[in-house]
Amino acid sequence: LDASATPSMAGAESRAALVYGGAGALGRAVVGVLRAHAWRVISVDLFANEEASANVTLAKDDGWQQNADRVAAVVQGELRGGQLHAIVNVAGGWAGGDIKSADLIKNTELMLAQSVQSSLIAGQLAAAHLSDKGLLVLTGANAATKGTPGMIAYGTAKAAVHHLVKSLAADSSGLPAGAVTLGLLPITLDTPANRKFAAPGTDFGAWTPVDAIAAKIYTWASGSEREASGALVQVLTVGSATTFNVVG
Amino acid sequence: LDASATPSMAGAESRAALVYGGAGALGRAVVGVLRAHAWRVISVDLFANEEASANVTLAKDDGWQQNADRVAAVVQGELRGGQLHAIVNVAGGWAGGDIKSADLIKNTELMLAQSVQSSLIAGQLAAAHLSDKGLLVLTGANAATKGTPGMIAYGTAKAAVHHLVKSLAADSSGLPAGAVTLGLLPITLDTPANRKFAAPGTDFGAWTPVDAIAAKIYTWASGSEREASGALVQVLTVGSATTFNVVG
Repeated sequence: LDASATPSMAGAESRAALVYGGAGALGRAVVGVLRAHAWRVISVDLFANEEASANVTLAKDDGWQQNADRVAAVVQGELRGGQLHAIVNVAGGWAGGDIKSADLIKNTELMLAQSVQSSLIAGQLAAAHLSDKGLLVLTGANAATKGTPGMIAYGTAKAAVHHLVKSLAADSSGLPAGAVTLGLLPITLDTPANRKFAAPGTDFGAWTPVDAIAAKIYTWASGSEREASGALVQVLTVGSATTFNVVG
Repeated sequence: LDASATPSMAGAESRAALVYGGAGALGRAVVGVLRAHAWRVISVDLFANEEASANVTLAKDDGWQQNADRVAAVVQGELRGGQLHAIVNVAGGWAGGDIKSADLIKNTELMLAQSVQSSLIAGQLAAAHLSDKGLLVLTGANAATKGTPGMIAYGTAKAAVHHLVKSLAADSSGLPAGAVTLGLLPITLDTPANRKFAAPGTDFGAWTPVDAIAAKIYTWASGSEREASGALVQVLTVGSATTFNVVG
């Protein structure tokens, strides 16, 4: 972190957010929209996002506790007693494979590390630093609202995240009483990486542009159009139009 | 494993089961009832269960893939082309603590290893060895049917197991078409370990005797009283009487 390049919490940038996974396709969009509205943004990822106000750069092979400790220490230093008004976890990956997959165990450990580990750390940050009416967003998956026999590793990890949303939204969870915890449940994001693996004839009009999600997250972060805490919000795109629907 | 002491699959012991967690309090009860009905039983645990027909003994610090490989190899050798008619995973532990717990990360990794790892391996064994109308039982938790703010690690892992039940019960999951996958969702088991931590005035009549569950599992294993595949079955004990109720 280049402390000299870090704007102070005081002054114009009175609102602050943390984006976990802030260097991925969706993360960059979320960081971008928050920065465009002059929020101070801390990005946490394997790579720095040069648009962010500050970065926590994780090492690929570090364990869960090491990552948690590193993020906690850097964020505490950055905030200097200030608060976060939004914490958005968009980290996560995807892996296919049914119960017979040779990669089942390895992939499940990876999916748990990418989705559950990051969500736990986001939750810890929320308990420590979220403002009274702050927003916590964790990313699940619409597919995991029912069984996922063809993608066991992914669905199992995302179902765990859905449960974490319910736990952190409960009374006496340890988060501020007025905070709102939402689960974001995308179907397919329209990203360069996903385009690369698209089957011929794919209806890209059913894929969600990352900017549509980033705009919604900014609205939520600003205190508008929030669902009840604990809601699992499906992101549905039809004919290139995106809606957000509570499904759990 | 002492192969010379292992009865053949042929002859009187025509039915075979595997109990993952077979050396714990509930596991011993399940092994016991199956053995009492002359089933051949393979126990998988950190310690051998001398009542079992064969044991797979895991090393405490082995990783997920190491455990999966060890179990697969030993079971394949034991079965010699035969099948398992029931696979019951009763492995798992408990940890309390909200999102602020200093042990949150460590405990979540432990709960995932104890419950999700063992359930994945049980699922792999089911795909490889379960008979056409075989039974697969995975152990979740009634508490995890909603948010678990006071026991984040435990609830998150058990919610993942519930999802795995749904995935493995789905058509084309990779399990035999006639197999039945059930989730067992206890509230509190009446075990010596749990008694040790009981608060004064605890109503032990609301705790479930392990023999009540073992008897139900034997009934299911024998092909009777089975719920629809994918059911999450709550184990409710009131006034020392135990009922089994589908809650998901």
